[in-house]
Amino acid sequence: MDTTLVLENIAKHVKLSEGEEARFISLLSEKKLHKREVLHKEGEICRHSAFVTDGALKGYSVDKTGGEHVLNFAVSGWWIADMYSLFSKRPGVIIIEALADSRVLLLSRDSQEILFNEVPKLERFFRILVENSLVANQQRLLDNLSLSAEDRYLSFIKKYAFVLQCAPLHTIASYLGITPEFLSKIRRNISQ
Amino acid sequence: MDTTLVLENIAKHVKLSEGEEARFISLLSEKKLHKREVLHKEGEICRHSAFVTDGALKGYSVDKTGGEHVLNFAVSGWWIADMYSLFSKRPGVIIIEALADSRVLLLSRDSQEILFNEVPKLERFFRILVENSLVANQQRLLDNLSLSAEDRYLSFIKKYAFVLQCAPLHTIASYLGITPEFLSKIRRNISQ
Repeated sequence: MDTTLVLENIAKHVKLSEGEEARFISLLSEKKLHKREVLHKEGEICRHSAFVTDGALKGYSVDKTGGEHVLNFAVSGWWIADMYSLFSKRPGVIIIEALADSRVLLLSRDSQEILFNEVPKLERFFRILVENSLVANQQRLLDNLSLSAEDRYLSFIKKYAFVLQCAPLHTIASYLGITPEFLSKIRRNISQ
Repeated sequence: MDTTLVLENIAKHVKLSEGEEARFISLLSEKKLHKREVLHKEGEICRHSAFVTDGALKGYSVDKTGGEHVLNFAVSGWWIADMYSLFSKRPGVIIIEALADSRVLLLSRDSQEILFNEVPKLERFFRILVENSLVANQQRLLDNLSLSAEDRYLSFIKKYAFVLQCAPLHTIASYLGITPEFLSKIRRNISQ
């Protein structure tokens, strides 16, 4: 289990002692996922946050007509979970699935809550992590309201180079809130 | 300064001692806002979170062509800030403005950071608050991707009855990501 990346991720925000790092690592478990393998199913309670060490995952929901709506992606160095389900301990609506062969470190919500009490610096770390996620989400809401689909696609390319390699066109279009046909048109315009 | 509502807000998640409550209150200041008064301007650093005790505020951005894009509303019992600016201490892009005569309690980010160290239970409270905001934002992103404009309007009515009374049509339409004309059409359909 390679924990270098997750410890670097934490060290950006708080400084743990060796003992605290060891305690944190003792509560992680590693999981390998094949491309298209589902980490979390809708209708189930999401019990873990996943830190991606390799590959990429997507979070999405499926509507009554079978339409797929992509909420988010997580690439190497990012955390992903069905936040609603994780925090509320109720069944969720999000499916989390590997876009490519991937490797994740799992931290259960129960373990996380133990850490909040044992190592207050980790409560601080997760507070900052969630603050940053909230800012990223608000920015995406604003981008959806104020930027053209082409500008949203250009900013997507910068942020998610790896997703671009492994996700099919319709998945990226869904994330951007446009049809695959419209995304093809945008790509043709950009390449000209 | 009436702090009943904000103490109730905190008590939902953590139990403060009388001394901790007093310390928290000592760091708040009250501000009255007239309808259309701006609490936070774009281009400035957002230094405070505002807890609404009366009235309603909106957070919005203005694009290059002068178009207004409503990010969020805060009614009585809710917190609002330009999160990006507050957390990063960089100039923000959001304007926060009163939709009606309002009253807010201000907590500066500096005071909040003092509280995180002095009263760890308040770091926990704000961690939970931000977790809940993140879930609400993700839900809104998913709703925007998967629900019809009419369904989004119906869920808006439930959540923001007070905003409906005091915000003009174009502000609500902007929040929903549709034109005022389309919102009028939806309202006519619903009333029939």
